[in-house]
Parts: sequence; C-alpha cells; structure tokens
Amino acid sequence: MSENVRQIVGGLVSVARGFYARGWLMGTSGNLSAVVEREPLRLAITASGVDKGELKPEQVLIVDENVQVLSGMSSRPGFTSKPNSKSKSASTKKPSDESLLHVRIVKERGAGAVLHTHSIWNTIFSDLHVEQGGVRIEGYEMLKGLAGVRTHDHSEWLPIVENSQDMPALANAISKILNQDKSVHGFLIRRHGLYAWGDNLTEAKRHVEILEFLLETMGRTAMIKRG
Amino acid sequence: MSENVRQIVGGLVSVARGFYARGWLMGTSGNLSAVVEREPLRLAITASGVDKGELKPEQVLIVDENVQVLSGMSSRPGFTSKPNSKSKSASTKKPSDESLLHVRIVKERGAGAVLHTHSIWNTIFSDLHVEQGGVRIEGYEMLKGLAGVRTHDHSEWLPIVENSQDMPALANAISKILNQDKSVHGFLIRRHGLYAWGDNLTEAKRHVEILEFLLETMGRTAMIKRG
Amino acid sequence: MSENVRQIVGGLVSVARGFYARGWLMGTSGNLSAVVEREPLRLAITASGVDKGELKPEQVLIVDENVQVLSGMSSRPGFTSKPNSKSKSASTKKPSDESLLHVRIVKERGAGAVLHTHSIWNTIFSDLHVEQGGVRIEGYEMLKGLAGVRTHDHSEWLPIVENSQDMPALANAISKILNQDKSVHGFLIRRHGLYAWGDNLTEAKRHVEILEFLLETMGRTAMIKRG
Amino acid sequence: MSENVRQIVGGLVSVARGFYARGWLMGTSGNLSAVVEREPLRLAITASGVDKGELKPEQVLIVDENVQVLSGMSSRPGFTSKPNSKSKSASTKKPSDESLLHVRIVKERGAGAVLHTHSIWNTIFSDLHVEQGGVRIEGYEMLKGLAGVRTHDHSEWLPIVENSQDMPALANAISKILNQDKSVHGFLIRRHGLYAWGDNLTEAKRHVEILEFLLETMGRTAMIKRG
Repeated sequence: MSENVRQIVGGLVSVARGFYARGWLMGTSGNLSAVVEREPLRLAITASGVDKGELKPEQVLIVDENVQVLSGMSSRPGFTSKPNSKSKSASTKKPSDESLLHVRIVKERGAGAVLHTHSIWNTIFSDLHVEQGGVRIEGYEMLKGLAGVRTHDHSEWLPIVENSQDMPALANAISKILNQDKSVHGFLIRRHGLYAWGDNLTEAKRHVEILEFLLETMGRTAMIKRG
Repeated sequence: MSENVRQIVGGLVSVARGFYARGWLMGTSGNLSAVVEREPLRLAITASGVDKGELKPEQVLIVDENVQVLSGMSSRPGFTSKPNSKSKSASTKKPSDESLLHVRIVKERGAGAVLHTHSIWNTIFSDLHVEQGGVRIEGYEMLKGLAGVRTHDHSEWLPIVENSQDMPALANAISKILNQDKSVHGFLIRRHGLYAWGDNLTEAKRHVEILEFLLETMGRTAMIKRG
Repeated sequence: MSENVRQIVGGLVSVARGFYARGWLMGTSGNLSAVVEREPLRLAITASGVDKGELKPEQVLIVDENVQVLSGMSSRPGFTSKPNSKSKSASTKKPSDESLLHVRIVKERGAGAVLHTHSIWNTIFSDLHVEQGGVRIEGYEMLKGLAGVRTHDHSEWLPIVENSQDMPALANAISKILNQDKSVHGFLIRRHGLYAWGDNLTEAKRHVEILEFLLETMGRTAMIKRG
Repeated sequence: MSENVRQIVGGLVSVARGFYARGWLMGTSGNLSAVVEREPLRLAITASGVDKGELKPEQVLIVDENVQVLSGMSSRPGFTSKPNSKSKSASTKKPSDESLLHVRIVKERGAGAVLHTHSIWNTIFSDLHVEQGGVRIEGYEMLKGLAGVRTHDHSEWLPIVENSQDMPALANAISKILNQDKSVHGFLIRRHGLYAWGDNLTEAKRHVEILEFLLETMGRTAMIKRG
C-alpha cells in the first residue's frame, strides 16, 4: 500500500507537469487527485496554490472524505512530512477548497482519478455556451477515446455549471448535473475550467486530452467557418 | 534482422513522442507503423489505446498482413513479451482496428512506413472541405519536401474519405482513392485524421510534418483573409 | 546572504528559461529582477541583451537603487566576475535601461520580484485597448490567483502606459499609474509588453502566468465571438 | 581554427533544434549557415534534406563561395567524413540549392550568419502582402532588438521576393532587393519563408526571433481587429 501511494503520487506529478507544459495549469491553477483507498476514502490530491510545473511528491496530500488532511503520512514512503518537523511539509499544506468537488465526483461516479484543468479553450467554451447549458460534441472519431463510446457517431454532452465560491453549493450543483445525465465524462464550470475523471489516472488523463482537443477543434472550426 | 527490428521500433517510439508533444496524438489517438519484412509482410505497429507520449518499445506489436499479432516476438531484442509471462507484454496487447488500413496502404503503395495523426488542423480540414472531396494545396515551397515533387509550382490533392467503423469497408474506400490518383501522398478521414506514408519512417515523418504545416498555414490564411 | 543570492539568481534563471520556452522573452527581450536586500536596495536583474533561453547565472547583475552595477560581486558565490579578469564577466555587462522601471516598482509597491515579458498577446492588448487606457478583466476564476483577490467576481484593471525611450519620464508615468490605483497587479506598456510583480519570485511568476492566460483567453474569445 | 569550426557547428545545431521545436523548420525545411572564414569564404551550412530536430554536427557541411563542398573536412574536429569511408559522411551529403542565397547574403551584407526559416506566420505574410512588395513593421518596442535600431519609433521594411526554382535568378533578385535598401534586416520569399542574418549566429538568431514574433503579433492583431 505504501508503494501504491508512491506510484499514485508519482503519476499525479507526471500528469501535472505534462499538463502545465501545455498551458492547462497556469498560475498554480487546477487540481489533480487519485483514489488511494475507497473504504474509508483516502484521496491523494495536489495541495492548494502549488506550481504544477514544479510539483513535488510532498505537495500531494492525502485527505479523507471530509477533505481533512490525514496525519501519519510521514511514515509512508513518498511523503516527507513529520510532526514537529521544521521543514515545509505536507502537514503544513492545505488542500484546495475545490477538493470537495473531487470527493463528490469520486463518490457519485466511482471515479479513480479526477483532473481539473484551466485551459484557454475550456475557459472560452465554459462562457460561450453558457446559455445552452453545455457543449454538444458530435461526430468526431476522437470521441471513441471516452470510456464506453464505440463509434464516432456519438453525441457527447459536456454540461456547464455556473461558478461559485460557495463550495458546498457548487458540489450540490455538480451532484445534480451528474445525476441528471449518467453518461457525461466531464463538465465545465463557467469562466473557470474543466473537470474530467476516469476509472484510473490513465483514463482520466486520456479523457482530459480528448475533451481539450475537441473543444479546441470546435473553437477553431467556428473561427474559420464564420462568414 | 533482430537489430533491424530494434532500430525500427526505436524510430517509431521517437516519432510518437515527438508528434505527441506537438498535440498530434492526444488521448491515445493515432497509429504509427513501419515495415519490418515485406515477404511475408511483417509490420511493426503501435498497440491500441497506448499513450503515445509515453510509448514504450514493448507497446509496438509485430503483425502479419491479416493483422494477427505474431508469436515468438519474445526472442527478438527489443521485445519483452514471453509466453506464460505475467508481465504486461506485447502478446497481451492488441493492435488497433485501424491496423488494417496500414496494411492496405503498405500493399497499395509499397510504403515502408505509415503514420496516422489526429491534429487540430487536419481534423478541421477533413470536415471543412468534405464537399469538395479533398483539399487542394498549391504553390508552396514546402510541397517540395513531398517525394517526387520538384517545384513549388505543384498542385497536391489531399483526398477526404468519409469516416466509418466498418474497417474492411473503410479499407476498400481507401484502396479506391489510392487507385484513382497514384500521386497522392496522404489522405484525410472525415472528422478523424490524416494518413501519410513514405518509403521509410524518415520520409513518412517528413510528409506528415509538411502536410500538417500546410494545412495549418492554409487554415490561418483563411482566417486572416476573411473580410 | 551569499547563499541567498545564489538561490535568487537560480530562481531568475529558471523562470527566464520557462518563459522563453513559452515565447514570452523572444529575441533577448524582457527583464527579470528580484530583491536581494532592501536597505540599501540590492536588486538582482538580468543583464541587457542576453538570450533568456540560455540565461546563465553570471548574466544576472546586482544593481543598487540608481541602477549602478555593484562591484565586489566576484566574492559572492554564483558570480564569476573578477576585477582585471579577462573572462566575460558580470562587471563587463550592463543592465537594461528598463532597470529603472524595476527599481521604481520595487520602491512604489514593496515588490520582492518584478517580471517584464513581451508576449504576443500582451503586445496585442497593449495596443488594442490603448484608447480605454487599460484592459478590464472580470469574472474569471483565474483572477483568484492574484494576491488579495478572493473571488472570481472581481474586476481587475490592467492599465496601459504609452511607450517611450525616455526612461525617467516613463518611470514617472508608471509611478503616477501605480499611485492612482493601489490595487493593480501589473500594467502594459503600449506595443511593448507587460510588467507584473509580487512579494517574491514565486508570486510574481504566478501573476505573469495568470495575466498572460487571461489576455489570451479574452483575445481568443473576442475572435470567436465576433459576428 | 578547428576548435572555431566545432564551436560554430555546435551553435548551428543548437539553433536548429530550438527553431525546429518552435515549428519553424518542419519537414527538413530551412537552412542555417555561419561563416567560418571570410577570405577565401568558408561557410558552414546545413546539408540538404536533413531533419533539423535531430541535426547532427556531421550534417553541417563546409562549402566555398561556389557552394562546392570542401574536401579535407575529415581532418577537422567535429567532422567525421573520410575519403573512401563507407560511413554516411559529410562528403556524401550535398548542400541545399539555396546555399547560393546564403553565400550571396554573406557577400552583400558581410553577414556572419544567415538563417532561413519556414514558419506558419512568415509563410502567411509572404503571400498576404505580396502586392505591396513587402511588410511594413512599425512602432513596436521589439524592433529595438534589430541591429542599429534605437527606438520603437522605427519603420522596418521586410521585402517580399517572388519564389523561383532558378537559384541564380533568385539570387540576383535578392541582390537587387538588398541593394535597393541597405537597412533591411531580412526578406521573405513568397509562400516559401524568411531569410534573416546578423554579424554572428547570436545576432542572426535574435533577428529571426524578433521578425517571427512581430509577424505573428501583426497577424493575430489583424484577426482580432477585423470587424
């Protein structure tokens, strides 16, 4: 299990650095998480306000379902925090307020990993299509990379939720969206960003790449088509 | 010949990682192949659903002309699969359904390497020009990098094929296209991606870069010119 | 203190290389600085005309509040200049004329680091919004990454100053802007670039990334929305 | 002198890889050269048809003023070619036909390095402004990075030459352009690319970065401004 945590944290660090390079996690934005244990819930999640381009394993926290940082991480390989240690350790870092949304998605969907990105194109679409309540993505081969999709002849709905600083309210709004349509693979928060998830980190990463690719493709198509 | 396989696989891994960095193989999309032997056909091809940014040599399969994964790869350098091995090996991976298209292109054109990318710009053009049946590319110096083209004063036709999940049907549609015009260096599948090829991997890579460059140049020119 | 300088210089080199990779410091443009000591002021700042993609520690100078390069750096770790040395040393390099602006921002705002970038998007906005005197940025979650901003429901003003080669005059124009609105986190110089700052280099880097992200998002939104 | 050659070739390799990463030398396009000796002229120049992203020192040739590859390179450090060697050596590679243009620019301008890039934006502008005969670039701070320019209040002319496969004719057209206006820092060939130069490789690289930056800025400004 210790080795398991180390692997999971290493995976989050690797994905964070790759997404940062693509400009999807600028200015310490975004959060990445993966389930370490399900019962009781133990979630590895990036600490608040850290530079994702230089993310270090000790900047990934383990939280429970109430987003409390768990003590005793110091005894696990891959974590350096020690009680009474003067070094800047995991125990002195705090999880993002949005960790609550990660926990909610894990619970509602049984997700094994949740990735939240702030890209140029997901920010644009989260605003541009707000009146329609979401973005309809249809007919692209790339859709086949979303879990359970077998053909390009598929219609994917990417809902948009209004942004809020009231996290419990936002979490409830998201639960409602997730319950309305069991088939969605992600959602946008208005002028904020994208949430996507998967059974594991590999699948969640694939889903983010696919949704980002399709939003950019649709955005540039709209720009080139406009008469 | 073993060393030959190792070199070919290493080349595919290198191209895959470079193209992934450019955003042309996001979300495990795309496939890359190179001929190992021609009679009988032995094709090295990326396994289905693997992350091209982290492609490993053991994720490249050797298939025959019926896209059957060949056994006995374990005895060749560069391949780790072993019968009865518990490790995630080449023998437990499957080739993409689109491998059939790679085989067809190798046979129809005598190609030594076939590269299939999903870029933003090739996806846009595959849809935007579908009514014309293809994209006409003319007058660019960059065209001289396509095999057999000696001057910028050249008119290249990049045909578009309708997308389908019926691989034998799609392969036949592609054969028809390839037979209609012996001079094409690639084709687009609608809302899906680009196929290009060459006598060897170096030439195929060059062709992809040139076609991607020209599509992006034409796309941005259209956007800037529109009144 | 010597180790402190070494750390600060190393941080500037790292940020410079990262920003260069994103195209924000092309053609030796831009300047980066961080405070080494406040009383009397000792500022580490990139030398004039150096390639930011290959920035070396010895290309970072220590200047005083009059932008005079301080002698005796040679005795500090991380600096190689020696009096009477024939090697190309810090003492033979000169600070950018714009160093005066860095000093002014440090004094006016108590900033610990000042970063000046020349990006495509900040150059565009510095010209496009010149008649309004600045750029209004509102309603984006990303704004929360700016120091002191607690909600996306925030209205950030990014003033634009007319460009000039008269540095004292430009410094005074900037002082005026900074005194008019104590809440700004950066400003644009017309057809020139962005200045942003923070309590330390980490915060200043975060601010640049956020402002660059938001300008690009707004620019692309304008392009896609235009009817 | 041998060490000099090694340094120059190393510099060309480094610039080539950096420019390739930015997409300015795709599909083996472009050429980079630097003067090794002036009397008689000895020019280090990239061989024809090589992948700039994987450029190796032995793919840089030494040519004379008639673009003849010089023998005897094998005895110089950094060059591996040997007469009668079976290895793929410099002596079996040929210079690009466009090497003639590099020699002409070196002679006409006394340039120490000449860089030819094929970027998306320089290709677009070389076509878009062909009727005006060139691109006027005015008022940008970034212009100050061009040798001899002291203020942003400068008007730079970037001439456009019609493309041709007749190299002596193209060289003469370029000589004419260069003689008409002694102040230009580069020129475009229609639907082909950019040539820029400098007293040395560092300056030439800076000039390319500045001109590429300004063309992209002007291109995106035109797109955003269009009503």
